[in-house]
Amino acid sequence: MKKTTRRQFLDNTGKAAMAGTVIFAANKTGKMELKNIFIHHVYFWLNNPDSKDDLNKLKEGLTKLSKVKTIKEFHMGKPADTNRDVIERTYAISWFCMFDNAADQESYQKDPIHLKFVEDYSSLWKKVVVYDSVDA
Amino acid sequence: MKKTTRRQFLDNTGKAAMAGTVIFAANKTGKMELKNIFIHHVYFWLNNPDSKDDLNKLKEGLTKLSKVKTIKEFHMGKPADTNRDVIERTYAISWFCMFDNAADQESYQKDPIHLKFVEDYSSLWKKVVVYDSVDA
Repeated sequence: MKKTTRRQFLDNTGKAAMAGTVIFAANKTGKMELKNIFIHHVYFWLNNPDSKDDLNKLKEGLTKLSKVKTIKEFHMGKPADTNRDVIERTYAISWFCMFDNAADQESYQKDPIHLKFVEDYSSLWKKVVVYDSVDA
Repeated sequence: MKKTTRRQFLDNTGKAAMAGTVIFAANKTGKMELKNIFIHHVYFWLNNPDSKDDLNKLKEGLTKLSKVKTIKEFHMGKPADTNRDVIERTYAISWFCMFDNAADQESYQKDPIHLKFVEDYSSLWKKVVVYDSVDA
C-alpha cells in the first residue's frame, strides 16, 4: 500500500512538474532530485543563546516570515544530535526556504513581511550566515 | 490550470503523508512546511577551486552518493549569484539531503556507498562544513 501511494504521489508530481509549478524530478530509485530551484538556507546565532524566550520569539518571527508568497517550501530547524568535527552545531535556528528561482528569492528579500521581520526580530541575533544555492 | 494541478499535488501529498511515506504538510497558503524530517546540508571547498575537472569529479561522486537508499530528496548546488555580507559564497558545491529521521541519516553515514564516496573523492576537498537540522 505504501508503494502505491508513493507511486501516485510521484505520478502527480510529474504532472505538476510539467505544468511548471513543482520542482521535483523522481529518479529510478524513487527518491527525488530537486532541480530548477533556489535554496536559501540561513543559520541564526542568538545574542542570548540560553534564552528560551528569545528562541521562541525568533520562531514566532519566522512563522510570520513563512507567509511570504514566493516561498515554495520551508523548514524551521535546530541542530540535530549528530556531533562530529565537521558539523557546525552552535547555531540556534536554521531557516530553510526553497524558491522556484532567483527572482522569487529576490522578491522575498524585498517583501514587506520580510522587511518587518528584520525590523522586529533582528535584535535577537548576533550572527547570521546565509547559503544561497542553485543547481550545480 | 496551474492552480488545479497544484491542488491535485497537495491532495495527493496529504494522502501519502497519511501513509507515512512523505514528509510535507501543506499550510493554508498552499506552500509546504517540511516537518518530521532530518536535513543534512553539506558545503564543500575544493583543494583546487579553479579546476573544472575536480569540480566535475566531485559532482560525479555525489551522483553516485545519491543512490544511498535512505535519502528521500537531494540537491546538488553551487553558490547563487546573490552577494551580501552575510552570504557565504566561497564554497564550490552544496549537497542537500533530506532524510525521514536521524536513524536514516546515521545509516547513510555508514552505507558502503557513502564510505566509498569518501574514499574515492575526499582528496578533492580541503574543507567541508555540515549542518544537520531537525524540526525546531
